[in-house]
Amino acid sequence: MSPHPLPAFDAVTAEARGSVLYVTIHSPPINLLGPALVADLVTLIEYADTPDSYPVIVFTSADPEFFIPHVDVNRVAEYRHVASRLTGEASLGLLFRRLSTTSAVTIAQIEGRVRGAGSEFVLACDMRFAALETAIFGQIEAGFGLVPGAGAIQHLVRLMGRSRALEVMLGAEDFDAAAAELYGWINRALPASLLPEYVTALAERIARFPVPALRAIKERVNAIALADEAAFRRDSDMFAEAIGHSETQARVAAMIERGMQQRSWTERNMGQALGEL
Amino acid sequence: MSPHPLPAFDAVTAEARGSVLYVTIHSPPINLLGPALVADLVTLIEYADTPDSYPVIVFTSADPEFFIPHVDVNRVAEYRHVASRLTGEASLGLLFRRLSTTSAVTIAQIEGRVRGAGSEFVLACDMRFAALETAIFGQIEAGFGLVPGAGAIQHLVRLMGRSRALEVMLGAEDFDAAAAELYGWINRALPASLLPEYVTALAERIARFPVPALRAIKERVNAIALADEAAFRRDSDMFAEAIGHSETQARVAAMIERGMQQRSWTERNMGQALGEL
Amino acid sequence: MSPHPLPAFDAVTAEARGSVLYVTIHSPPINLLGPALVADLVTLIEYADTPDSYPVIVFTSADPEFFIPHVDVNRVAEYRHVASRLTGEASLGLLFRRLSTTSAVTIAQIEGRVRGAGSEFVLACDMRFAALETAIFGQIEAGFGLVPGAGAIQHLVRLMGRSRALEVMLGAEDFDAAAAELYGWINRALPASLLPEYVTALAERIARFPVPALRAIKERVNAIALADEAAFRRDSDMFAEAIGHSETQARVAAMIERGMQQRSWTERNMGQALGEL
Repeated sequence: MSPHPLPAFDAVTAEARGSVLYVTIHSPPINLLGPALVADLVTLIEYADTPDSYPVIVFTSADPEFFIPHVDVNRVAEYRHVASRLTGEASLGLLFRRLSTTSAVTIAQIEGRVRGAGSEFVLACDMRFAALETAIFGQIEAGFGLVPGAGAIQHLVRLMGRSRALEVMLGAEDFDAAAAELYGWINRALPASLLPEYVTALAERIARFPVPALRAIKERVNAIALADEAAFRRDSDMFAEAIGHSETQARVAAMIERGMQQRSWTERNMGQALGEL
Repeated sequence: MSPHPLPAFDAVTAEARGSVLYVTIHSPPINLLGPALVADLVTLIEYADTPDSYPVIVFTSADPEFFIPHVDVNRVAEYRHVASRLTGEASLGLLFRRLSTTSAVTIAQIEGRVRGAGSEFVLACDMRFAALETAIFGQIEAGFGLVPGAGAIQHLVRLMGRSRALEVMLGAEDFDAAAAELYGWINRALPASLLPEYVTALAERIARFPVPALRAIKERVNAIALADEAAFRRDSDMFAEAIGHSETQARVAAMIERGMQQRSWTERNMGQALGEL
Repeated sequence: MSPHPLPAFDAVTAEARGSVLYVTIHSPPINLLGPALVADLVTLIEYADTPDSYPVIVFTSADPEFFIPHVDVNRVAEYRHVASRLTGEASLGLLFRRLSTTSAVTIAQIEGRVRGAGSEFVLACDMRFAALETAIFGQIEAGFGLVPGAGAIQHLVRLMGRSRALEVMLGAEDFDAAAAELYGWINRALPASLLPEYVTALAERIARFPVPALRAIKERVNAIALADEAAFRRDSDMFAEAIGHSETQARVAAMIERGMQQRSWTERNMGQALGEL
């Protein structure tokens, strides 16, 4: 247990069990990534890096259908500004990169949809396990005339190679957990009934190992596989620039018209919806 | 539709359907990669990079058994010279690298054999989908005392890692589509009956997305995963140097004696034939 | 056949069949990696790099349960010193890196357990094939408060990407051959009954190809995928530094108390044993 009391959160709940901190995303209606969730991530990362904090953090969602579906497209400037509290730069990509370098080992347990920056959030975690029957993955930016701005380009190319990363990002299609496992988007797909127990057991196991070794291994791995800040910054800048283009704004508006940002058929089937736009 | 009329081709046919350009390799008897096909690639790449050209190109083969089996071993100097029209250098590897940086998104739909430079051609495409029952992959150069000279070393190592790339290139054995999928040589293996529809749907989907985003994503991915020109040039030079060695010439002659370069058992079963040489 | 007589070995036996040298690890009771085995590796690498030596070396184990379970934790300083005979530096990681650059093509045929430096030894080989029913893989250092010091960090991240490498190394859990294949830890998992024949056929096939091409391909692949000496040295230094820490010493002692370094339940089930420590 950490000697530090848990901070207050708005868009997540946090509960410690033993040496593992379980953080549950709970930002109704559908866990859009907006200023409140970003503020909580800033708080959480700062907390994770206090001495003697929890060595392992598990992220889950209170919403079985949506882990993080994507950013709140109406509040891009706001959440970017909130991110700058931690990194000094208004960039979700640099915030997520900072998450990848926290002292804590981070594990995402994914039952629902992660698309866009939701996918980028779980890619920034150290590991990702997903429910075979229900998890859905999408890197949807191209469908809006955008580039993934919060790290997907950097992570997906290194995880799955040039051709599969291009397919994922240019196709902007939905992938189920089995396909995500085949491509290396996630560590492993598991039956939904086994997933929580599997992740908990792994988290508790890691949390019992000596912390300095965990940190040293993560640092050495990041030195090889985590792209530098300049690469994340460039992607982030390209996203910020393209979001204002008229064609992007038109496509965003058309998707909102069809139900995007609400608990709707369009959010459940974003891959198909983008293809029919 | 592109505002530019389609150029004339010799070794391929090209047909536009909507915003997708379908290029079918048709160079009897078995689609050897020689001067005519290289000339068409030069023409096609130049066409693809004119403003407002087709955003997506799909490559298929008119020959169900052979996509591109390998180069025409009797015309190496010729096709290398033709390649220099585009890049200024007599190198198939640099031509293929140039294909990887075209504005268009390129997809290979593979029903038959791709070996040697045929494999390197599809590796230079942005994505590759293959027929489970019929597609065959081989990086056969080692069997002739050669190194892969047109990009396979650069692509395979990055796609499948050191050990599998060494197995593929040192073993020079035939791989079916399921094995190629497992190793990441291709994006995905699909039943032959579903393959054309799958590729067409993906191509048309991508072609409907805003073009600047497609280009930006491809450029960012290439910045990470496409080796630099010097690496391609070095492999290309090593191939050109080794092709003249007496042991290589003897092995090429022995394979031609056994039916190589014709529609023969040897071409159908090159992996086995090389092992029995 | 090599013109050079085989050198004398202590912890391995070596037998040439045609152009392939079969090296069988035989260091009872359980093939711990200690000074004798390291000395043999030094001898073997020097032998492999004499002109006209065997072009392909296959490594197997005389012990069906244990290929190399890990280092002899009581003789770390000794085996590191022996390694320096070849490289000038007391580092197992630099010795294994040197194995990866030998002229010979090296293939590991794995029926039993490879954990810790045993895993790092097979990762240093050019290819790895394992028995589906019996092979077990573990990168167990974190469980002892250590970092993998002999190349696993460098190899695993490049073979399987950031997230799976972190899972493997932070979790320190046992993986069977099917999971190792999925993650790219090995080339391929095969039924135990087919494994020896498969590896032998591949080794003999490669050994019939012209040697200069094999060496050139391996050199070009290493230029891309083999980390530099400084990276291996850094990991090695971190291991050497951590081995003396009191928490590590306590965990090592506790595991020895439970049967580690002997033919025991603990050695057979190291993943589970570490989780219960």
